Amino acid sequence: MAQTTPNHTQTVSGWAAHDSSGKITPFIFKRRENGINDVTIEVLYCGICHTDLHHVRNDWGITMYPVVPGHEITGVITKVGSNVKEFKVGDRVGVGCLAATCLECDFCKDSQENYCDQVQFTYNGIFWDGSITYGGYSKMLVADHRYVVHIPANLPLDATAPLLCAGVTVFSPMKDHNLHQAPGKKIGVVGLGGLGHVAVKFGKAFGHHVTVISTSPSKEKEAKERLGADDFLVSTDAQQLKKGMRTLDFILNTVSAKHSLGPLLELLKVNGTMVVVGAPDQPFELPSFPMIFGKRAVKGSVIGGMRDTKEMMELCGKHNITCDIEVTTPHKLDAALDRVAKNDVRYRFVIDITAGLPSNL
Amino acid sequence: MAQTTPNHTQTVSGWAAHDSSGKITPFIFKRRENGINDVTIEVLYCGICHTDLHHVRNDWGITMYPVVPGHEITGVITKVGSNVKEFKVGDRVGVGCLAATCLECDFCKDSQENYCDQVQFTYNGIFWDGSITYGGYSKMLVADHRYVVHIPANLPLDATAPLLCAGVTVFSPMKDHNLHQAPGKKIGVVGLGGLGHVAVKFGKAFGHHVTVISTSPSKEKEAKERLGADDFLVSTDAQQLKKGMRTLDFILNTVSAKHSLGPLLELLKVNGTMVVVGAPDQPFELPSFPMIFGKRAVKGSVIGGMRDTKEMMELCGKHNITCDIEVTTPHKLDAALDRVAKNDVRYRFVIDITAGLPSNL
Repeated sequence: MAQTTPNHTQTVSGWAAHDSSGKITPFIFKRRENGINDVTIEVLYCGICHTDLHHVRNDWGITMYPVVPGHEITGVITKVGSNVKEFKVGDRVGVGCLAATCLECDFCKDSQENYCDQVQFTYNGIFWDGSITYGGYSKMLVADHRYVVHIPANLPLDATAPLLCAGVTVFSPMKDHNLHQAPGKKIGVVGLGGLGHVAVKFGKAFGHHVTVISTSPSKEKEAKERLGADDFLVSTDAQQLKKGMRTLDFILNTVSAKHSLGPLLELLKVNGTMVVVGAPDQPFELPSFPMIFGKRAVKGSVIGGMRDTKEMMELCGKHNITCDIEVTTPHKLDAALDRVAKNDVRYRFVIDITAGLPSNL
Repeated sequence: MAQTTPNHTQTVSGWAAHDSSGKITPFIFKRRENGINDVTIEVLYCGICHTDLHHVRNDWGITMYPVVPGHEITGVITKVGSNVKEFKVGDRVGVGCLAATCLECDFCKDSQENYCDQVQFTYNGIFWDGSITYGGYSKMLVADHRYVVHIPANLPLDATAPLLCAGVTVFSPMKDHNLHQAPGKKIGVVGLGGLGHVAVKFGKAFGHHVTVISTSPSKEKEAKERLGADDFLVSTDAQQLKKGMRTLDFILNTVSAKHSLGPLLELLKVNGTMVVVGAPDQPFELPSFPMIFGKRAVKGSVIGGMRDTKEMMELCGKHNITCDIEVTTPHKLDAALDRVAKNDVRYRFVIDITAGLPSNL
C-alpha cells in the first residue's frame, strides 16, 4: 500500500458541485501535505470529460458531494517527496484518473493498475487515508508520483490535458489489439467526440484505414478533411451499413448513449472485435445473431494503466498528436457542462485554471 | 463450388411441419441422386435441437414450409459417389448442420466452413441446385461427403447424434480458447440443457474446474453427482454471485432466453471471455460497467467447422463422451417438441427413425 501522510493542511481553491443540480461554484478545501511519494502540482489546465458531467449530476448514484471533478490534468511540479526520483520541481506533468491502487496485485505489478480491484480515482474516490479525493478543477494537486507522467516538450499543456483520460482510454484497447505496431488494418471508430477524434488520429498515425461511423452525416467532411479519416458511414443508413458488412478488423465504440450493437457488429469481419469504452446509463442491446454468425466479440476497456499512459504520451510527442480543444475558464463551467451534455463541443473543453478566481490561493 | 447432380429422383419418407402451428406429420418428398461427391445415408437416429423448434414454429420468420427438421443425424452409408475416398458402404457416420459452403473462401480453406458467407444448412437451406434442403427427420439423406464424419466404433449412434450440433457448438469455442489442451482453468457453464450438459462433460474431460450456473437450484445435485461439476451457482442468488466475482477464466453461455449478461460477466476474471452460443429472439441486455471495469468480452460462436467436428468426435471416442438422451419415435414428435419448448428433457431427445412409418420407403 502506498505510504501517505494523513495531514490535510494545505488550503486549495477549486470548483465544486454541491448537489445533483450539478451547478459549479468556487470551493475552498484542504489537501494532504506532500508525502514522501508525492509530488505537488500547480494545475494549469484540466479537460472536461463526459464522466465529470455524470458525476456532478449524480447520474450513476455514486457521487459524494461536494465533488471537485477533473481527471485530465496538466501542470508544473512545485514540490517532490523524498522517495521521488523521476520528477523534479519545474517538470511539466500530467495526471489522469488514477489516484491510488494496491501496488501489490498482479494487475498493479503488470502496470494494469486500472484493473486493480482496490483502484481509487482522482476525484470522488477514497484515498488510503480515508479522505475523499478532489480532482483537477482546482489550482493545486497532490498526487502520488506513481500516477504522474511527463509531458513531452513539444506538446502544449492545454491540448494535451485530455490525453490523460480520453487519449489513454482509446490508446489502451488499440494497443491491446496490437494496432500500435501492426499497420494496414481496417478499423472503425464509432462516435466522433472527445474520445473518437483522438482514436481517428491514433488510427491514422499507426497506419490504418480508418472509417468513422456516426449518426451525424454532417460530420463527414470534418472527419475526412480535418482528421484524415478514410471513410465515413452513417450508422442510421441501412444501405451504407449493408455495404460495409464484414469489412472491418476492429471497431472502437466511443458512444456513451444506449444503442443496439447489432448493426455495428455486422461491419466486423469474422472473428473481429468491437471494444466498448462508453458507459451509458442503460444496458446496450446485444442481438445474438450478428455475434454468433460472425464469431464476433464485444469487449470492454476502461482508461489505461500507467505504462500505457506513458507509452501513449511518448507516441503523441513523436507524432505530435494532441486533442482538438476549446479553451474555457472556471467562470463558465456551468455553460461548458451544458454544452458537453449536448455534445456541442469540438471536441473537448479544457479549463484554463489560471484564469480562475480566487487568485490568491 | 461443390459439384452436384440436379436430378431429384429419389423418393424419401420423412416428417415435416407445414405451417407455423409447428405440427409434425409424415411427409413424402424427393432427394437428389447420389452425386460424385455425395454419400447416401440410411438415417437411424436424429437429435431434436432447440433450433428445430424455432424453425417448425417460424420463430425467426425464415422458415420455408414444408420443413423437414433435423441436423443431428447418425446412420449408415448405403452409397458413395465416385470422388469419395474417405467413406465406404456400411460406415457409421454423422451429419450436422452443414449442407454446402463455397469451398473456396478463406474460411472454407481453413475448415471454418461454418463462417463461409455462402453457408447453407442441412434443412431450410438452399442447395447449389436451387432445391430446398430437408433434414434428418427422414429415413434417408444424400449428403456431400465433405460435411460427413465417421463415428468412433465405441460410441452408440443414438447418444452420439446430438454431438453433431450440440456437441460441436460447445466444443468449437472451447477449442478456440485452447481449453482442450490447457487444463486447470476455472470455467463456467451457464444453462444445463442439451448444450450445457455436454460442455460440462468436455470441461471435466479436459481437466478443468467446472462451475454450473443455472436459474434452477434443483439441478445442483445432478450437475455435481451425475455430470461431475465442481461447483454450482444459482444465477438469481445475488449473494452467490457476489461470492463468485472475478473467479472464472471462461464462461460458456448456452441459454437461449433473453437475459442480462451483466451479473454473469462479473463472475469472470479481468480479461475473461464469455462465449454465447444461444440465440434468443430478443437482444441480450449488456450493461457497460461489468464489461469495461473488467476488460471482459462477450463473444459469439455458431456450431463448428468440419475439422472441429472430426476432432470432437475423436475426443468423444477417446473419452467415451456421449449425450444424455431420451429416445423418442417419429409418432411422438409433437409431444417431444412441446417438452423441448418447456426444457423438459434431460438433456436431449433423439428420434429412433427406424421406429417410424411408413416403413416401405
